[in-house]
Amino acid sequence: MAARTVKLAVIPGDGIGPEVVAEGLKVLETAIAPHDLAVETTEYELGAKLWHRTGETLPDSVEQELAGHDAVFLGAVGDPSVPSGVLERGLLLRLRFDFDHYVNLRPVRLYPGVESPLAGVTPEDIDMLVVREGTEGPYAGAGGVLRKGTPYEIATQDSVNTRFGVERVVRYAFAKAAERPRKKLTLVHKDNVLTYAGELWQRTVREVGAEYPQVAVDYCHVDAASMFFVNQPARFDVVVTDNLFGDIITDIGAAVTGGIGLAASGNINPDNTFPSMFEPVHGSAPDIAGQGKADPTATVLSAALMLDHLGVPEAARRIEAAVSADLKSRGHGVRSTSRIGDDLAARVAEQG
Amino acid sequence: MAARTVKLAVIPGDGIGPEVVAEGLKVLETAIAPHDLAVETTEYELGAKLWHRTGETLPDSVEQELAGHDAVFLGAVGDPSVPSGVLERGLLLRLRFDFDHYVNLRPVRLYPGVESPLAGVTPEDIDMLVVREGTEGPYAGAGGVLRKGTPYEIATQDSVNTRFGVERVVRYAFAKAAERPRKKLTLVHKDNVLTYAGELWQRTVREVGAEYPQVAVDYCHVDAASMFFVNQPARFDVVVTDNLFGDIITDIGAAVTGGIGLAASGNINPDNTFPSMFEPVHGSAPDIAGQGKADPTATVLSAALMLDHLGVPEAARRIEAAVSADLKSRGHGVRSTSRIGDDLAARVAEQG
Ligand SMILES: CC(C)[C@H](C(=O)O)[C@@H](O)C(=O)O
Ligand SMILES: CC(C)[C@H](C(=O)O)[C@@H](O)C(=O)O
Repeated sequence: MAARTVKLAVIPGDGIGPEVVAEGLKVLETAIAPHDLAVETTEYELGAKLWHRTGETLPDSVEQELAGHDAVFLGAVGDPSVPSGVLERGLLLRLRFDFDHYVNLRPVRLYPGVESPLAGVTPEDIDMLVVREGTEGPYAGAGGVLRKGTPYEIATQDSVNTRFGVERVVRYAFAKAAERPRKKLTLVHKDNVLTYAGELWQRTVREVGAEYPQVAVDYCHVDAASMFFVNQPARFDVVVTDNLFGDIITDIGAAVTGGIGLAASGNINPDNTFPSMFEPVHGSAPDIAGQGKADPTATVLSAALMLDHLGVPEAARRIEAAVSADLKSRGHGVRSTSRIGDDLAARVAEQG
Repeated sequence: MAARTVKLAVIPGDGIGPEVVAEGLKVLETAIAPHDLAVETTEYELGAKLWHRTGETLPDSVEQELAGHDAVFLGAVGDPSVPSGVLERGLLLRLRFDFDHYVNLRPVRLYPGVESPLAGVTPEDIDMLVVREGTEGPYAGAGGVLRKGTPYEIATQDSVNTRFGVERVVRYAFAKAAERPRKKLTLVHKDNVLTYAGELWQRTVREVGAEYPQVAVDYCHVDAASMFFVNQPARFDVVVTDNLFGDIITDIGAAVTGGIGLAASGNINPDNTFPSMFEPVHGSAPDIAGQGKADPTATVLSAALMLDHLGVPEAARRIEAAVSADLKSRGHGVRSTSRIGDDLAARVAEQG
């Protein structure tokens, strides 16, 4: 029997979610095999089907069960049959907020062999870590509507930023930057327009930065950063930013590194007061669901982020090495979802 | 004497502003020569220098004078010696708001001969018109700070969206889409998270769209749109979006079409209750100011947008044709700012 058992809640979700999650778990199992560790999974059927059957997105009792796990592994939620936002807010964002996932960690790396839509860039040019705040900003849900349906209607949408919330994610970002060879941290915001929130972010970065003299600090407006992600990605090492700006720039990051099919993310509660949640950045892609066409790589890389969080970095590095080798040797041949998973698992095992 | 005289307020501004504005005016004069039209310019010294001397960004009396003109032509404002946001808000945004520039018009076109950072894209792939709302959203300046400097500090930043404000810009966008060959309008928002504002935008597009059955309507979340601007730009024809999303995606648009040096913009008051304002999207670039190194093309293209607005579309088309020819014939030789202006003016004159 393994010395340690990780209790993993699995939410396959909708569309391609179940397919990619199966491969993620397959590779995960192979990666931990050499370690004195077992993973015990419990599957939760949440997503469009549950919503259609019961009108619920996340029953309180299920959330409580999830909270008792060491981590959550999620495929994708969302279906055209469900109104936009219902599952996103009722399940994904609810878990991010209730489980206090204040770090939304999104590596942006161009793997060797992967074709970037950018001409002439090399893997050396794109290797960043975006630390997106996950529990406040415009995602807080604050706002309202007055005089709906009249010519005098007004809809507000409020971004909520607290020193507490900003400081903890900024601290996390500095710690990450200090660990990396370049030791550079860029704050992305829009402080020339969003003055209240921008000033708080700037001041917090300045103050926390005083404790990290070895980290070089830079600032970039979100519009300029969005441009630089395309034409000067090498500017960035670690990026820290708010919830909405992070949502946008990490999709640009995914685009320039070969697409959303490779982008991994971790919704992390660094204090471990609740389980962290790991998921590919892509959605449920209902158009290709059930056909074995989805690339499980983003999910597999999310499993690596999970292993880092669970304290098994050697296993995480083996997964990354396997992905790296697989991507480098990809031709134009088409492999099925499970075949890619098998190949990745085999490469992980080789390194075992 | 010309039958009609256009009174143009010119704000050269800071950094490279005066250099590029001079070339913009040079080309403008050449373009209107065949028409029964004269341009009478009045220069206003606003920007960093005035602020250092007087602490003012836009004296009320000057704003009143500006209001008496037919249009405003602006180079760039901003200098590292002035705190971030002071000139942007005190001058640029103040004019956009006070002069009710509710349409911020930003064409995103890849000109033949221009190298895009994207591999393999052609001018046919990127030809869109972004209609950015200019007078509300997160730019309204609403928000505040509580308990500043304490661990309990909270900063809010509110996006204000009105039916009045959204409807008028959506109407403008539909009218533009109906004029174009593809007749496609994409709303870019984030309605799965920013539910109050998003629903208002969606509903308004749906309702106004009923009057434009010939226009195909699409919707895209801002994160996905930011990705598609990079890897599927051909998806877009006319894009309508809020003030902040428009700020971000037009910089991505500038990046994929060869950089901010070519991106033009018009801050338009379609009702002509106040003068519209035309400016390049780029900033004051203090690092290269005064060296004759700046590319005036974005400013020249902004002059073309101004001529469209002033009802001289033939002159606008001649400028665009001149820019197109110039860009196509550019080698790696370096020309000065004024040389590019001379060359563009000569090309415009040839077509005269
Ligand atoms: C699905 C949506 C709510 C989500 C977000 O906006 O955070 C997604 O875009 C992401 O980036 O994980
Ligand atoms: C300078 C700044 C206030 C401005 C904006 O945010 O609108 C600029 O980025 C732009 O796009 O014109």
